[in-house]
Amino acid sequence: MNCKITPIAHFRSPFTSKFGIPRQSGLVEELRGRIVFEPEYRREEALKGIEDFDYLWLIWGFNANEAAREQGDEGTEASQNVTAKHLTCKECSSKSSPSKNLTVRPPRLGGNERIGVFASRSPFRPNGLGLSSVRLSRVIDGEIEVLGADLMDGTPIYDIKPYIGYADCHPDARGGFTDNRQWKELKVVFEDSTKQLFTNEQLQTLSKVLALDPRPHYHHDDQRIYGMPFAGFDIRFRVADGVLTVTEVKQ
Amino acid sequence: MNCKITPIAHFRSPFTSKFGIPRQSGLVEELRGRIVFEPEYRREEALKGIEDFDYLWLIWGFNANEAAREQGDEGTEASQNVTAKHLTCKECSSKSSPSKNLTVRPPRLGGNERIGVFASRSPFRPNGLGLSSVRLSRVIDGEIEVLGADLMDGTPIYDIKPYIGYADCHPDARGGFTDNRQWKELKVVFEDSTKQLFTNEQLQTLSKVLALDPRPHYHHDDQRIYGMPFAGFDIRFRVADGVLTVTEVKQ
Repeated sequence: MNCKITPIAHFRSPFTSKFGIPRQSGLVEELRGRIVFEPEYRREEALKGIEDFDYLWLIWGFNANEAAREQGDEGTEASQNVTAKHLTCKECSSKSSPSKNLTVRPPRLGGNERIGVFASRSPFRPNGLGLSSVRLSRVIDGEIEVLGADLMDGTPIYDIKPYIGYADCHPDARGGFTDNRQWKELKVVFEDSTKQLFTNEQLQTLSKVLALDPRPHYHHDDQRIYGMPFAGFDIRFRVADGVLTVTEVKQ
Repeated sequence: MNCKITPIAHFRSPFTSKFGIPRQSGLVEELRGRIVFEPEYRREEALKGIEDFDYLWLIWGFNANEAAREQGDEGTEASQNVTAKHLTCKECSSKSSPSKNLTVRPPRLGGNERIGVFASRSPFRPNGLGLSSVRLSRVIDGEIEVLGADLMDGTPIYDIKPYIGYADCHPDARGGFTDNRQWKELKVVFEDSTKQLFTNEQLQTLSKVLALDPRPHYHHDDQRIYGMPFAGFDIRFRVADGVLTVTEVKQ
């Protein structure tokens, strides 16, 4: 039994590619994005009472998988085998045939160790559905502004639900492999004149995003210049000895 | 852009109808259920590492909406208008045309007050997707046994993800209309001989389920005998003065 789902909204974010997007929601709380509804759901009544909640759940589609593949990024989280399977459906990121490989390689485990896809939040999964809790900032002009989302610009959203603490919050829950491996944050330095194009808020957000190390996990080349789109800019940087240096910003 | 999703598993629960199912996950922690995978996902590797997590997220389909409608239950949470829209798709509970009404009437607000569908966890929603955090009990014979689920027997499951506290847990989150209205639990009494057919665990679980008051919210008839299927039994009960009395149990 298949089920057809249709986007109720799309996400607007400073990230137009998957590069730099925090690997979970909430990691960069300042990150501002907007939920823009499809015309049939753009109605005040659909959001009545929503501002009394601090957080929302978004159920969304990993539509970036295919785009990422086209850009030559084969994913650090999954085997190429699974990635390829995901590309058989042109409409969305879902696979249309049984997976041969149901394991993924989480970046947090160094990209080498395999765990089961259902024990991970990897984007390379059956049905290609993502789940994120985001902080509700405000409702404005029929759109919802949220903070801390890990969704790429243009991501289709299939459902929005309020976060209900008594059902959703488990403070003592063990977090499997995510418990023991901490991300080492980078120190972020902007070279002269690279700061000028940004607002203060953009600069603060970008700094936190870069501190999380947006490089693909298997890259450790001190000399290499990396590029990442953010808020309409092309950010160039390199990383050496735990310091990320922004070397150039293009508009 | 539509997206087709396919069940990876189905849920097995003592509840073969929506009656009595706790209104959120975790309300009856003892409630035991099983996730039974479709053949192509019934592979040990897909679950590698999952037992190191205490909780799982399930993304599932409200397929009971249509069945409920056929049984003459028009839902306490949504207007009949929305309910009817949901029945246009025979494959699943999703609607196939724009909703006319994007509000619902949560039981917690007495069934009269309307709020926006995206400010509620009502089953009567675009795309008919449900979201529940469940406690992982154990993995056995390629199935996952979980506790506290609010899924009906036979519910299709589209994704399973590990619960990751640092991204998913927000202890101070305001819970909107759910914060201020407490459910009044009922005292549960079994009449003579109605207990005999159950195991101790079934009796304990059933007692907690009944204490949550499984009656439709608009029913307040002291004399009426209600029926509810549970674990293969037909449970008959009445409610008066805050006491629920099990009057008969049939096999």
